Amino acid sequence: MSESGGDAAAARRPPWPGGAAWIDGRYRPVEDAKISVLDLGVTRSDGTYDVVHVWDGRFYRLDAHLDRFAASLARLRLDPGHDRAEIEAFLHGCVRHAGLRDAYVSMTCTRGRPAPGSRDLRTARNTFYCYAVPFVWINSPEQQKQGASMWISEVTRIPPGSVDPLAKNYHWLDMELALLDAYDHDAELVVLGDGSGAVTEGPGYNVFARVDGQWLTPARGTLHGITRRSMIELAAEAGDPVREGRLTADDLRRADEVLATSTAGGIMPVTAIDGKPVGAGVPGPLTLRLRDAYWRRHEDPRYTTPVRYDEPS
Amino acid sequence: MSESGGDAAAARRPPWPGGAAWIDGRYRPVEDAKISVLDLGVTRSDGTYDVVHVWDGRFYRLDAHLDRFAASLARLRLDPGHDRAEIEAFLHGCVRHAGLRDAYVSMTCTRGRPAPGSRDLRTARNTFYCYAVPFVWINSPEQQKQGASMWISEVTRIPPGSVDPLAKNYHWLDMELALLDAYDHDAELVVLGDGSGAVTEGPGYNVFARVDGQWLTPARGTLHGITRRSMIELAAEAGDPVREGRLTADDLRRADEVLATSTAGGIMPVTAIDGKPVGAGVPGPLTLRLRDAYWRRHEDPRYTTPVRYDEPS
Repeated sequence: MSESGGDAAAARRPPWPGGAAWIDGRYRPVEDAKISVLDLGVTRSDGTYDVVHVWDGRFYRLDAHLDRFAASLARLRLDPGHDRAEIEAFLHGCVRHAGLRDAYVSMTCTRGRPAPGSRDLRTARNTFYCYAVPFVWINSPEQQKQGASMWISEVTRIPPGSVDPLAKNYHWLDMELALLDAYDHDAELVVLGDGSGAVTEGPGYNVFARVDGQWLTPARGTLHGITRRSMIELAAEAGDPVREGRLTADDLRRADEVLATSTAGGIMPVTAIDGKPVGAGVPGPLTLRLRDAYWRRHEDPRYTTPVRYDEPS
Repeated sequence: MSESGGDAAAARRPPWPGGAAWIDGRYRPVEDAKISVLDLGVTRSDGTYDVVHVWDGRFYRLDAHLDRFAASLARLRLDPGHDRAEIEAFLHGCVRHAGLRDAYVSMTCTRGRPAPGSRDLRTARNTFYCYAVPFVWINSPEQQKQGASMWISEVTRIPPGSVDPLAKNYHWLDMELALLDAYDHDAELVVLGDGSGAVTEGPGYNVFARVDGQWLTPARGTLHGITRRSMIELAAEAGDPVREGRLTADDLRRADEVLATSTAGGIMPVTAIDGKPVGAGVPGPLTLRLRDAYWRRHEDPRYTTPVRYDEPS
């Protein structure tokens, strides 16, 4: 393997505000973070990942993300070759090398490369890498003033009997094509169905709708997002519990409020469905209150972990 | 982007018998062929590919593979940034730089990297690369003497309503977990179901069974492989046409002969299903005749294209 590109890159001293990665055994600018085109993570999308965010210098619910990553690894029989404490240290190290106060921090484990000429998966040594980049918004605070427009796609989300959505994975081609279709209909967000009239999730977010005086979110066929969990807890704390069940496309169309939840942006108001306004067509009052509560939690030590900015590189 | 690793690598003169790639605008040893971990081909498996093989210095059915790649690109709204003649030239160039007489030649186009901080797919410039590596056998000629053992998985193949199997894609996690399960049952190959009792395909191969005196292969829920097409043509030429329809797990279990077809190995006999022998438990006579006819075609100029080994690099 040629390491000279990485060596040259490593010689450029941090911080690397465009992003920093830990890959192939060292920290590098994220621009230099690359994997082999022969890695089964590329050629078979055989891998899992998780994404945690840092806000104002603190990880949000880092333990919950590390727990989920461990569960995804076990489900896919992957071994990152590092224990939890090491992975956690690499995540801190990426944020430190990037010098970011607000960051989107991703960790990935792929099946790796099989032995040359072999198709036997058991000959592959799994690949682990992680990186921190500037915080990514699915819908920016500026865009959130108006709220997002969501399209209900005809595409059926890959069903749990084929790929378990609880093991976070990169099988997004159904969502990508649905999203391109949403753009054609002047929408920025999309939600996919389960083939029976219920909706599941969008590319990177869960969906909640205020229907008949209650928050409703899909229970099945969707990733159990950590922000989804925060939303469920915050609604319960407000005395207004969420029902996890079947959310139909018709429910979405007649909802009083709709919101999307994601690590990449938190709780985000949706103000149009299929081109028609949700309620009054502006971010709903309950949504705004929950969003505020969500961001307030980012100062609460019960849910946050200060980034170790001061450790030696 | 750091190019110095590639520069150093390119300074090592071809041939590169371990494999050669065309990526980031130049030829390199395949060991140096890497893509960004931020490419949507990695983070969303948003891309398509095709694989053609070279046997004894000649591409087999190159036009058919290029036709299918073009159709997959159109289906996924991807633009490789090169026309068909250029792509064909890069494929020849990869084989030439590797100096291989027998090769497995892969071409890929991914969505590429979105603009920093953006989730908008329309900000991404698509990525194209291709490479040639030594010919890969799903089942080697030595293994084929005994024939392969196949496991019928409980996993449902990702359905066409979610991801169109006719646009060749890297969504293989269902097949990967099914294959790991097959290993646990001492099988080397696996076939996935469609959730209704019919079988679809395995990781990289189509399946044919000799049932009630006729060859039968799934019509739907499966990639239309080029080797599958060859098998259908060869059987018809032998006056023994294949029926494309519904192939059930029970059909497979009671078949007189079973075979798998793939660019990575051609027509390959399957001699055990779920641990029980197919027929007499040895490669079937019809299978062996079709396999011979398949390899004879590799000398036929109607189906083959000589590699341009002599062009300047």
